[in-house]
Amino acid sequence: MKISVLGCGRWGSFIAWYSHHIGHDVLIWGRENSPHYQELEKTRKNEYLTLSSDIYLTHNLKTALTKSDICVISINSQQLRSFGKQISSLNIKSKVPFILCMKGLEIGSGKRLTTVLSEEIGITSPIAVWVGPGHVQDFLCGMPNCMIMSSLDTTLTKYLAHAFSSPLIRFYYGKDLLGIEIGAAAKNVIGLAAGMLDGIGYSSLKGALMARGTHELSRLIEAMGGNPMTVYGLSHLGDYEATLFSEHSNNRRFGEDLILGKPFHKLAEGVYTVQALMDLSETYHVELPISKTVYEIIYNHTNPRKELEKLFLRSVKSE
Amino acid sequence: MKISVLGCGRWGSFIAWYSHHIGHDVLIWGRENSPHYQELEKTRKNEYLTLSSDIYLTHNLKTALTKSDICVISINSQQLRSFGKQISSLNIKSKVPFILCMKGLEIGSGKRLTTVLSEEIGITSPIAVWVGPGHVQDFLCGMPNCMIMSSLDTTLTKYLAHAFSSPLIRFYYGKDLLGIEIGAAAKNVIGLAAGMLDGIGYSSLKGALMARGTHELSRLIEAMGGNPMTVYGLSHLGDYEATLFSEHSNNRRFGEDLILGKPFHKLAEGVYTVQALMDLSETYHVELPISKTVYEIIYNHTNPRKELEKLFLRSVKSE
Repeated sequence: MKISVLGCGRWGSFIAWYSHHIGHDVLIWGRENSPHYQELEKTRKNEYLTLSSDIYLTHNLKTALTKSDICVISINSQQLRSFGKQISSLNIKSKVPFILCMKGLEIGSGKRLTTVLSEEIGITSPIAVWVGPGHVQDFLCGMPNCMIMSSLDTTLTKYLAHAFSSPLIRFYYGKDLLGIEIGAAAKNVIGLAAGMLDGIGYSSLKGALMARGTHELSRLIEAMGGNPMTVYGLSHLGDYEATLFSEHSNNRRFGEDLILGKPFHKLAEGVYTVQALMDLSETYHVELPISKTVYEIIYNHTNPRKELEKLFLRSVKSE
Repeated sequence: MKISVLGCGRWGSFIAWYSHHIGHDVLIWGRENSPHYQELEKTRKNEYLTLSSDIYLTHNLKTALTKSDICVISINSQQLRSFGKQISSLNIKSKVPFILCMKGLEIGSGKRLTTVLSEEIGITSPIAVWVGPGHVQDFLCGMPNCMIMSSLDTTLTKYLAHAFSSPLIRFYYGKDLLGIEIGAAAKNVIGLAAGMLDGIGYSSLKGALMARGTHELSRLIEAMGGNPMTVYGLSHLGDYEATLFSEHSNNRRFGEDLILGKPFHKLAEGVYTVQALMDLSETYHVELPISKTVYEIIYNHTNPRKELEKLFLRSVKSE
C-alpha cells in the first residue's frame, strides 16, 4: 500500500520507518525549512533512526497528498488548523483517509484534533486517530506494544488497523472517538503531574495519581457525551506506563525538570493540552483538580510541593 | 490510644513503628518461635527498622488481645483461619475492632479475609481492612502515601481512619468492602504478571496490563455483587505504582525472578491469591485471562513469552 507520512519529527519519522518495515511503499513529507526535514534530507538519519533509501522524502505537499492510499499526519497539535488550511488550499479531489498520529487539544477552543481537521478539509473526508502506548525508542529496540485505531466509521477503523498491524504493533480498534481523543491528549497532563511528583521526591503518590487522574477525566468525557469507561482503556490508562514511568516520556521529564529548575528544550504537548482542559472544565462544568493544579504550577508558578500535597494528602474523605 | 499489632513481619513491625510514631501506646505480638519475633526480641531491629523501647513486645496473645483499643492483624493470609481459631479459643469477652492489614484470598474457598476471620471469631466482631499503596521502605524514608480503610460500618471506618491518619499516611474510606478486598488481593497477581513482562523484556506492555488487568477484575467484582468501579480506586489501580513498577515489590520481583530462573525466598502473596482467583473465576463464570496466564506459567510451567504474547499481541480486535 502507498503510505504518505506528513511530518518528520520523532513520530513522523518512526511511522515512515515502521510502514516501510512492514512492507508498505512509503513517502515522508516535511517543511523545506524544518530542521528535522533538513537533517533527514542530508543524512537520512535523526537521533532515533535511519530511513531506508526506498523511502521517498519530499517537501512537496501536493505530491505527498496525491500519491498515497493513506495519509498519516504527525505534527505539533497546535499547528494542525493552519496545516489543514494548507491542505484544503491545494484543492485535491481524491478523498484518501487521514490518520492523526498525534495527541492534543486546540488551545482556545478545546477542540479535538479530528474536529479541527474536518473543519478545515471538509466533514466528508475520512479521518481516524492512531494513539495509545509505546515509545519510538522502545519500538526500535523491538519491544512490542498494543495501540489503538479509532474513527467514526467502523469499516474504516478496521481497514486502517489491519493495514498497520504487525507483531511489533498490535492494534485494537476503539469505538468512542471522543473519549479516545480526550483521554489520549489528557494523559500528557497526567504525565506532567507524574514528573512533578518525581521532582519533589513523592514518586510513591503516582499510584494515587493514576486512580484519581483517570477518575477526573472519566467525568469530563462523560459530560462531553463520551463513554466514561474509555479512559480506562489503552488510549489513556494503557498509556500510563509509557507516560508516567518511562525515562523516554517528554511530558514526565518536563514536569520533573520544571521542579528541579533544569532547562527543557523538547516539546511537551501536555503544556498546551492543560490550557485546553481548563477551557473544557469551564464549558462542561466539571472540576479537574489534578489538571488545575498542573496548570497553576506551570502558568501561575504556585508552590509545587504545597499544591501537590494539598491535592493528595488533604483531609480524610471517601474515595 | 492503645494499639496491639498482631504479627511482626515487614508490615506488622512497620505498623507498630508507625502507630508509635503518631503517638499511640503500642504493643506488638509475634509467635515465640518465629524468627521475626526472635530477631526483634534480641535486637529490637529488623532489616527495615528499629522499634522504640516504648513499644511492648510479647508472645502472649491473650495480653495482646485484652490490653488494646484496636487490634491490627498482619500475618500470612493463608494462616488467618487457624489464627482466628486461636483467638476464638481464648474466649475473650470484649469486642475490640480488628483491622486486617494484609492482602489475600483463602485458597480452596476463594473467601475474603474478613469472611474468614468473622467465621472464626463471630460475625458480631467489628472487622475492617487497611489496604492501598505504599512500601514500608518508602514510608520509613518519609515518603507519604494515601491508603484506604474500609468496613461494613461507616462509623467504624471513619473512627479507624481518623485514628491512623497522619501527614505520612492519609486515609480515604472505602464503602465497597467486597470490591476493596478482591482488588487489594488481586493486585498482587497483576504484580506477578508485571514482573514476568519485565523478565522477558516486555516492560512496555505494562500499560496494556494495567488497562486489561483492571478490566477483568472489575467484571469479577461485579459478578460477585460488588461495585465494578472499585478496582479503579486506591485499593487496586492506586496500588499499581507500588506493585507493578517498584523495586520493593515482592510480587513483581517474584514474577521477574521466575522468568530469569533466579531463586526467590520472600513471600509473594500473589502466588496463593492466583489459585483462589481460579476458584472464583469458575464459581462466578467470569473469564480472567491475565490471572489464568499467570496461574499457568507458575503452576503448569507453560512458556511465559509465548503465553504473554498470546495474551497481549494476538489478533486485532475491539477493546
